[in-house]
Amino acid sequence: MPVLPPQPHLDSDCRGVASILARVGDKWSVFVIMLLGKGPRRFNELKRMVGGISQRMLTLTLRGLERDGLVTRTVFPTIPPRVDYELTDLGRGLSKPVEALGRWAMDHQTEIQAARARFDGRNEPG
Amino acid sequence: MPVLPPQPHLDSDCRGVASILARVGDKWSVFVIMLLGKGPRRFNELKRMVGGISQRMLTLTLRGLERDGLVTRTVFPTIPPRVDYELTDLGRGLSKPVEALGRWAMDHQTEIQAARARFDGRNEPG
Repeated sequence: MPVLPPQPHLDSDCRGVASILARVGDKWSVFVIMLLGKGPRRFNELKRMVGGISQRMLTLTLRGLERDGLVTRTVFPTIPPRVDYELTDLGRGLSKPVEALGRWAMDHQTEIQAARARFDGRNEPG
Repeated sequence: MPVLPPQPHLDSDCRGVASILARVGDKWSVFVIMLLGKGPRRFNELKRMVGGISQRMLTLTLRGLERDGLVTRTVFPTIPPRVDYELTDLGRGLSKPVEALGRWAMDHQTEIQAARARFDGRNEPG
């Protein structure tokens, strides 16, 4: 694949990059990474903190992050069992750019929505 | 929606955030934003620089970024017409976290893929 010299990585096989970016394109993963950036959390704490997420979606999100090596899951043999989630070193590395991106998205969503309305107004049929 | 005090935005309506993150979850948008972060580019330059993108996919990617107010499109009345793309101020603001994220994804894709292989090995049926 062609590439410009100051971007030495851009020609590398980008299937791996695409699958990482797809994870970051998922708002639930971004919210969970941002929250775990502050420290370990129990499942139920995360569920309470991430407004609007279902039990099943949080389970799937955490499982995806665990699969990617970004989060560890620790079960404590209490009754009922307590399950803690924590960022790995890899996950902590990712949490910095994710945090910056999540903040940006939250701070600029109004501008983006206004731009979309303008664009759609200009490009209406008729 | 519930929210923890030091995350004042996490309870805000996150539909807008999700649609911005979906854009950033698209590798082509990320590559184009990273390239335009270096300065304005013509369509054909971008096509050459982003390895493996089709004409149609680049057109759609640029149109999506223009709709979001992140990129401007300028047509010069030459023969054949020259079309330049450039980040807006909003797009330049986004390019910083996107650049950090894209770099991270490129630098850590091997570790993520290894983690996935380990996870899938541990969680195989049987």
